[in-house]
Amino acid sequence: MVTVPARRKRATIHDVAVEAGVSRGTVSRVVNDEPYVSAAARTAIEAAIEKVGYVPNNAARNLVMQRSQAVGFIVHEPHSLFLDDPNIGGILLGANTVLSRADYQMVSLVIDSQRDTDRVARYLSGGFVDGVIIVSARHEDPMIRVVEKLALPAAFVGHPPDLRRLPFVGIDNRRSARAITERLIGTGRSRIGMIAAALDRDSGADRLAGFTDALGSRFDPNLVERVPLYTYSDGAAGMRALLAREPGIDGVFAASDAVAAGALEALRDAGRSVPGDVGVVGFDDSTWALRTQPHLSTVHQPAFGLGAAAAECVLGQLRGEEQPAEGILLETPVVWRDSA
Amino acid sequence: MVTVPARRKRATIHDVAVEAGVSRGTVSRVVNDEPYVSAAARTAIEAAIEKVGYVPNNAARNLVMQRSQAVGFIVHEPHSLFLDDPNIGGILLGANTVLSRADYQMVSLVIDSQRDTDRVARYLSGGFVDGVIIVSARHEDPMIRVVEKLALPAAFVGHPPDLRRLPFVGIDNRRSARAITERLIGTGRSRIGMIAAALDRDSGADRLAGFTDALGSRFDPNLVERVPLYTYSDGAAGMRALLAREPGIDGVFAASDAVAAGALEALRDAGRSVPGDVGVVGFDDSTWALRTQPHLSTVHQPAFGLGAAAAECVLGQLRGEEQPAEGILLETPVVWRDSA
Repeated sequence: MVTVPARRKRATIHDVAVEAGVSRGTVSRVVNDEPYVSAAARTAIEAAIEKVGYVPNNAARNLVMQRSQAVGFIVHEPHSLFLDDPNIGGILLGANTVLSRADYQMVSLVIDSQRDTDRVARYLSGGFVDGVIIVSARHEDPMIRVVEKLALPAAFVGHPPDLRRLPFVGIDNRRSARAITERLIGTGRSRIGMIAAALDRDSGADRLAGFTDALGSRFDPNLVERVPLYTYSDGAAGMRALLAREPGIDGVFAASDAVAAGALEALRDAGRSVPGDVGVVGFDDSTWALRTQPHLSTVHQPAFGLGAAAAECVLGQLRGEEQPAEGILLETPVVWRDSA
Repeated sequence: MVTVPARRKRATIHDVAVEAGVSRGTVSRVVNDEPYVSAAARTAIEAAIEKVGYVPNNAARNLVMQRSQAVGFIVHEPHSLFLDDPNIGGILLGANTVLSRADYQMVSLVIDSQRDTDRVARYLSGGFVDGVIIVSARHEDPMIRVVEKLALPAAFVGHPPDLRRLPFVGIDNRRSARAITERLIGTGRSRIGMIAAALDRDSGADRLAGFTDALGSRFDPNLVERVPLYTYSDGAAGMRALLAREPGIDGVFAASDAVAAGALEALRDAGRSVPGDVGVVGFDDSTWALRTQPHLSTVHQPAFGLGAAAAECVLGQLRGEEQPAEGILLETPVVWRDSA
């Protein structure tokens, strides 16, 4: 049991009853908007509620109603990425905006460890949320089984291959990666490499596949550097590795804008000019893209729109509407700036 | 009531009872670890639970126990700042790490509008969290009254002037701002300005006060530009305004690293070198500080430590421990790099 310091005790229905000089049952009827309460008693109770600072316990009511009026927003990321990746913020804000408008409380839950996974699973099964939005789930993500088992209204942002029948919102990473790589090829570069990140996600694997598609017979596996995360520091490390292996590299597709920003630092340190010596393209069109020198040519990822669409999808399920059998894919235009 | 599609129906205690061929009461006794159940019935029920995929409703249990095993993390920020300010991420991760270790679920709630404020207040009063950490509360923040009224174990990160007896964790913004400004003065600059942000917060107002302290009789109010938020774009706008008013400016204290990064862009656009023509110092030592060219001289703000200390403070209250009457202030060393 939780002990609160005596000086800060929460007022109960009993305190209201004592203050108003009525029974607790009468207070309960007023609080729950039930009939058969005299006007005098109602007035006295309302004054007593104000005086003692009583707040009804909605958890009890919600339990009876079988709803919490809350939707979970689960981010499954190592902590460092949560800080580095501005997409997550955009997705979160898109979801919050739509849920807020529908008067749902969005509650964000961060998963960074096995302990977090187990605890979030317990939380979801505890009836604290009516539905859930899951960002950056991985292959065989335990959250997928949790959501299936609980029959919880859910929408995934991104598309792990074993998602089966659960709804998702995403982008076509493969087609988008192919498009930006083709554009980079079109600038006349001949030794084009890729810093491929997060290959345990659908997004990371699909971006590498799109890069491979675009280069076709010119694809050289030696020009792909694999790094764990979509981060600035992994981008810098990946670029250094590529430069060491192939000093003649003249084009780079970085798997995200943060990765591209790190690559720019490594190129600057190595004395290479961008886009003079090396053309660099990123992916996301996040806040990074306009804060590098030069500004990044990149693929626009509609982060806010993804969050908003995922929220609409969960709200639709909560209203009992049929969901589309296929996932929803949003558009991803190429945004061409100064880095290539 | 919430309707879920028929194909994904959550298993109930009734389903378990039917499958096991026992009464619902017997299932309930097994689920709640009560005695007086035969070994045969227990085995049958456990097999039935596994088969139908039943998950007990913890919300009901938690209600009886008067606890949710969850702590709210409230960020009271306009959405744009949530994306721009890496401190919030560090505070969030520090809090999550400590709460996770204590097996508490951290649930983040974003407040961006009056509607969000009202809804979060309802959520807190609903019994969904046992305590709350509140980041960047403002003067007369409605959350302060909500927390007082609910007698909710709470810790504030930062220190609005009307916080009274509620616990807080913070830094001495005024002393820190004074220290970095004195260091900037020590480099021989004579026309030093400030881009002051977020003056409706204790942090923003105190940083301006510390700047004023350090300059003493040399303080020139004409060299202070006030901007609304701790953001890159407000930093760029503030720097442009200072340059227009005082072309001879040779030192700038930016109220945060994001503000400093924006100021660097405006200085670059105006053809001023940093630190050659103008020395720039920031505040936070966030990820921004190492991603600008040149790297920022700044004040280290222990974001992770603030979150961790706030979480410890709430956990202490949940254990019924006495809290210190004063707030907790963490150290903020000056980190001197290349921008001044």
